[in-house]
Amino acid sequence: MIGAESLVRTLLASGVDTCFANPGTSEMHFVAALDRARGMRCVLGLFEGVVTGAADGYGRIKGTPAATLLHCGPGLANGLANLHNAERANSPIVNIVGDQATYHAPLRPPLTTDTEGWARPVSRWVRKVAQVQELGVAAAEAVQAARTPPFGIATLILPSDVSWNDGGVEALALAVPVPAKIGGERLREAARSLASGEPTVLLLGHLALSAPALGHAHRIAAKTGAKLMAPTFNGRIARGVGRYPIRMVPYVVDLAVEELAGTKHLILAGAGEPVTFFAYPGKPGIASPRDAAVHELAGAEHDLVHALAALADELNCPPAPQLKHAKLEIASGPMSVEGAAQTLAALLPDHAILIDEAITLRAPFFAATANAPPHDWLQVPGGAIGGGLPLAVGAAIAAPDRRVVVVQADGSAMYTVQALWSYARENLDVTTIILSNRKYAILLKELAAVGAVPGPTALGLFELDRPNLDWVGLAESQGVEAARAETLEVFVDLLRGSLTRKGPFLIELIVE
Amino acid sequence: MIGAESLVRTLLASGVDTCFANPGTSEMHFVAALDRARGMRCVLGLFEGVVTGAADGYGRIKGTPAATLLHCGPGLANGLANLHNAERANSPIVNIVGDQATYHAPLRPPLTTDTEGWARPVSRWVRKVAQVQELGVAAAEAVQAARTPPFGIATLILPSDVSWNDGGVEALALAVPVPAKIGGERLREAARSLASGEPTVLLLGHLALSAPALGHAHRIAAKTGAKLMAPTFNGRIARGVGRYPIRMVPYVVDLAVEELAGTKHLILAGAGEPVTFFAYPGKPGIASPRDAAVHELAGAEHDLVHALAALADELNCPPAPQLKHAKLEIASGPMSVEGAAQTLAALLPDHAILIDEAITLRAPFFAATANAPPHDWLQVPGGAIGGGLPLAVGAAIAAPDRRVVVVQADGSAMYTVQALWSYARENLDVTTIILSNRKYAILLKELAAVGAVPGPTALGLFELDRPNLDWVGLAESQGVEAARAETLEVFVDLLRGSLTRKGPFLIELIVE
Repeated sequence: MIGAESLVRTLLASGVDTCFANPGTSEMHFVAALDRARGMRCVLGLFEGVVTGAADGYGRIKGTPAATLLHCGPGLANGLANLHNAERANSPIVNIVGDQATYHAPLRPPLTTDTEGWARPVSRWVRKVAQVQELGVAAAEAVQAARTPPFGIATLILPSDVSWNDGGVEALALAVPVPAKIGGERLREAARSLASGEPTVLLLGHLALSAPALGHAHRIAAKTGAKLMAPTFNGRIARGVGRYPIRMVPYVVDLAVEELAGTKHLILAGAGEPVTFFAYPGKPGIASPRDAAVHELAGAEHDLVHALAALADELNCPPAPQLKHAKLEIASGPMSVEGAAQTLAALLPDHAILIDEAITLRAPFFAATANAPPHDWLQVPGGAIGGGLPLAVGAAIAAPDRRVVVVQADGSAMYTVQALWSYARENLDVTTIILSNRKYAILLKELAAVGAVPGPTALGLFELDRPNLDWVGLAESQGVEAARAETLEVFVDLLRGSLTRKGPFLIELIVE
Repeated sequence: MIGAESLVRTLLASGVDTCFANPGTSEMHFVAALDRARGMRCVLGLFEGVVTGAADGYGRIKGTPAATLLHCGPGLANGLANLHNAERANSPIVNIVGDQATYHAPLRPPLTTDTEGWARPVSRWVRKVAQVQELGVAAAEAVQAARTPPFGIATLILPSDVSWNDGGVEALALAVPVPAKIGGERLREAARSLASGEPTVLLLGHLALSAPALGHAHRIAAKTGAKLMAPTFNGRIARGVGRYPIRMVPYVVDLAVEELAGTKHLILAGAGEPVTFFAYPGKPGIASPRDAAVHELAGAEHDLVHALAALADELNCPPAPQLKHAKLEIASGPMSVEGAAQTLAALLPDHAILIDEAITLRAPFFAATANAPPHDWLQVPGGAIGGGLPLAVGAAIAAPDRRVVVVQADGSAMYTVQALWSYARENLDVTTIILSNRKYAILLKELAAVGAVPGPTALGLFELDRPNLDWVGLAESQGVEAARAETLEVFVDLLRGSLTRKGPFLIELIVE
């Protein structure tokens, strides 16, 4: 058996049956092996950022890794930004990067670069396999590394000769550890802080934002008066009717500081301290007060549902209070982002997956969907632009019975616009709402924040209206049906239609 | 003066007056400084691969660097593939990457990664500036590093606090060394080989492919019978009427080996040995015979025009023979790539810049344009896909009086399709010919080369026809006028029209 076949068979044996791919010549034996060892679903992306972002979305929804297939160091490079996001989301991914043959690379042919060095900052596990006999075991270890809590990216670099040489050995799946349970002093320390009566914030990240974990957190908040918050950007939050609401630390530093002012105890459960997205002259880099005591209840690698349940029990918290949700109505009247958000919340199907790369227009969508049917809310926690559209590819493939809705800023959408083609190729049930304000609105705000008046050069770099991007055209050119909404009435009709049909649809929503 | 202003003023003082940019929050002070220290032309790219590819095209045509402006490590990551190409083309680029503030980065906010580590494989010079006082001098050194023969990429990493702090000092331009002249034994060794009467190949790269260098190389060939060749992919070749022709080492290994069979002496002038693009089982990694003696006349860092002139003089070569060029006619009849190529050659304006990311369809265009009016031929020497469209942005800005023509494969075009918007924004005189065969044709060939019959999985990864990409729509959606040609007659009309108008135009040429 050649190496490539041992790799494919080991991946399948380890439960990896989906591969997001943008292959090249050095990956040909792998591709050929896919047609010999059946069972791997391959999804083509026309750009590597689509591939890695899709693998991120898949991992977040499925909880187990897909594989990628990338072409040498430069192919990996094109996927790094979304791997950076995936790393911050603790997504499990088996990231397979083909490379020049071991004996050829020293001659420095084209495409030769420091593939390992580029992979390392986004990977918890990197291995360049040098011998065909080792490939099967390395693949099993890669899957294990990706699935070991808190999950992460395992990059397997596959020189083409290792792929084509004979002597491959299919390896058995390796055991995956379960997340460790916390107890003892961590628990008691957090309980003491919560019982102290002093202002306490419980900051929840990762699986502490799952529905059961949020339920336990609300038991604690109801009993102790603690404030519950999530970081500014998160991999996945369980939201909507039947789920306990959570607010996020604001992006704007002054608002975040205000929100957390007076906190005496900061308890971390799957989150770090509330580090600001950027530094600004004269502003703090951590939004919580410097004199707040920080208590780490549990890290992302721990069993966070258990940790919060144990903490609630330690405090003798009664069951969580019954939830009340406002009834939602479709909005009417003149176009507004708030009206569009309310309409989305009213029409959202049960158990939708909502992907948020809305940037400056996030707040109204987040607010309105608190009362939407139950859904998962996915963000771009690494801050690398262009996560939104690709996440939907992977999420839709991981959960074919769920509707995916992308709420997407126009400027950011352009970075990985090729994802739309994959929606069409795979006929994915993805509704994309492009918030077309024709500017990098966040940068105009940020420029104002540094005290500068935008001159012609700055405006030239922030305004996207010369020429306007035609999002209907960009979608239809890639096989995705689309339409433009300039009034709320049209938006309501388009959204309703898109949410009840099979396959992808894109709405260009013209906003201020 | 704040750091950012010292940086802009130093760049201007050092002759860098063009900046290809995709900025973010950490670059706001730099952007604001651009409106205070006037004279920098800023060109917005909607994706970083456009920015870096444009800087590559600019550097190749202008011979001096433009600056980039990228947003933190993930922004750099999105630009790495085209920086990899630029590095192989020896393009001068001052690559400016904003980053988190020095004191904020240790808190690991979003967008924090190993920016220096990612930059290093593509950069000959990397510096993360830690003190505002050092920024001006660092910028001058970056320009000097980029311009020191054989040219290259200098990456300056700019933490946001270094940008906004007071205490910046504008630095004077630093001297740029001229390329070293070779002589002595290197010259005599090459001359002896050429005079030996044994089969000799003179392999020319980089500035040995400029018009004067090619002239001297032809003097040598005419006198000694040596064969002249260029590497398979090159940064820039002077071609067309009045220039001396040069063939490239074939991409297909067997053809390259056949072409170079029997060579006893391989003389290198600005090129390395003919390393094959990829390794294949049982095939050599260097296409020239292993028993050929290799003589390095001069490296890319040397004065290659002088080296070839000196070698020709050493051999007492007479002036180069007069050139004869065939008269070109517009093609007619049924659609064929050969006919399209002949038509392009016939209609090409004088001193056009022809950008080749034609992949499998390169050969007919290269052959036909040998007799076209004088032009420069630019390729993607690093092998990273997606170089073509962005190169045109930079080339057109470097040479606004010259027509740029991109001969572009469809699959590759998708990687950096956002470049089209920059064509429109800057109203660039770029004619784009998309060779729309709706497949990764090269991968079908490569799969066959490894002896595999494409199964349904492989075909799913190589065929781009479900759905077809609509290139007219992709262009028009980004503000570029476009039309489709399914017959040669239509192509002739569209091409003629596009070459005589101002601004960009895209032709989707439907080919097999």
